[in-house]
Amino acid sequence: MTAGGGPIAVFGCGLVGASAAAGWSASGHEVWGSDRRDLGPLVARGWIARQVPVEALEEAAVVVLALPVGGIVAALRRLPWRAGQLLTDVGSVKGAVMTAAAALPDGVSFVGGHPFAGSEASGYEAARPDLFAGASWALVGDGDPLARVASLVRNLGALPVTCGAAEHDRVVALTSHLPQLLATAVAAELENRADPLATALLGPAGRDFLRLAGSSFTVWRDILDQNRPELERALAAVTARASQPAGALEGEFELARALAARLR
Amino acid sequence: MTAGGGPIAVFGCGLVGASAAAGWSASGHEVWGSDRRDLGPLVARGWIARQVPVEALEEAAVVVLALPVGGIVAALRRLPWRAGQLLTDVGSVKGAVMTAAAALPDGVSFVGGHPFAGSEASGYEAARPDLFAGASWALVGDGDPLARVASLVRNLGALPVTCGAAEHDRVVALTSHLPQLLATAVAAELENRADPLATALLGPAGRDFLRLAGSSFTVWRDILDQNRPELERALAAVTARASQPAGALEGEFELARALAARLR
Repeated sequence: MTAGGGPIAVFGCGLVGASAAAGWSASGHEVWGSDRRDLGPLVARGWIARQVPVEALEEAAVVVLALPVGGIVAALRRLPWRAGQLLTDVGSVKGAVMTAAAALPDGVSFVGGHPFAGSEASGYEAARPDLFAGASWALVGDGDPLARVASLVRNLGALPVTCGAAEHDRVVALTSHLPQLLATAVAAELENRADPLATALLGPAGRDFLRLAGSSFTVWRDILDQNRPELERALAAVTARASQPAGALEGEFELARALAARLR
Repeated sequence: MTAGGGPIAVFGCGLVGASAAAGWSASGHEVWGSDRRDLGPLVARGWIARQVPVEALEEAAVVVLALPVGGIVAALRRLPWRAGQLLTDVGSVKGAVMTAAAALPDGVSFVGGHPFAGSEASGYEAARPDLFAGASWALVGDGDPLARVASLVRNLGALPVTCGAAEHDRVVALTSHLPQLLATAVAAELENRADPLATALLGPAGRDFLRLAGSSFTVWRDILDQNRPELERALAAVTARASQPAGALEGEFELARALAARLR
């Protein structure tokens, strides 16, 4: 079984790419992997049929760009895509990616994607076929290409959520990018103070908050850079809320509890 | 078996108080509970021997103030403590509590305490005897009173960590109070925008970050108020770190990863 008459090539086999490759292979697709690293271990596990060079990507029916956002944009601009191919990505910012995709040659289809799974780990060592089970997967696109990518996403057990690029970037600035930035900044401040009590006086709630602190700058640099305007707006709004005197915070706690209740 | 020749009274039987009472009862102490709520369910479970009025607290050998910080300070100032009694508390701020304790009558001992357990839940419904197993429990004090409270803390499976009030408050501003404030502010901003995508475009990392958003203002108002100077310093430092352009954040991610590696 293949996707739209040919293999799926996953360009970038880190945590997200390798997990998606594994899931698609398990559901019967022919999956190729392309990466600077040797993907022999993924072939051995049956997660990809074979490793291909970048030059072979134009032979795939579907190409999934599972690179950092800067790499996705560069790949859209520079590789020799072929009419009839369907491209999608897994980048955490959609505005910059959709702008680059708008300049693709005629006949090349693109659907922006962003799975809400993964962790602070990276590399295919942390990958697993069920990484996306039950996770939202934002999709920006329309028509038949959207339907085909949505079907592939469902193959992984994920839930397609269709949205616009701008609203995606506005929401994830708050749900993902600012949390990453704030957890990093709190952890950096704590580490910089070099207080031996820092790890002793840290409960489960603080640990949850700081879980993202182990994330890789390689992945996040592009995201934080490409979504900077929305991120700055979000940081300013959140700082203003947090700077109020304690007595004035009751409304903030009420809003937060309303959201928390919906998340339960 | 009793603590220093008499019962332990737990004043305030919410999540922390009821869990501690349950643990001490399980390890053979006679435990009294005092609360505005009916503690019948805790008596029925054997978590406390009986419910006593506030007036009876002066008859206990050890009194554990398990109230919001404002309530702890008020209890230290207003109740008729008796020479020979040992008091301790579980408040998340130690400076204000130690200042109030310094004015206790001669012969009344006090050791400040702060367990690093609990959750965004509150009330004895969420309590459990093993809540503190493996958790740090900060203690501010010295001599025989410190040794006695440390022993009680160990009865609960917690790990006593001795520290000064000022350093405690400086560290927890970053490990606990600022995370609570920032998670609340991000959740409030998200809820206030009323974007239907907010909960769909939220992955496991964002959920971890926002877990604290369900916390009770009743508990946090006093904490955020009493530790305001350290909290303001922490917020300013973190905002400065987070406001840097993406390209300048590599050092922040490196510091954060160093802390994350020690937390693993």
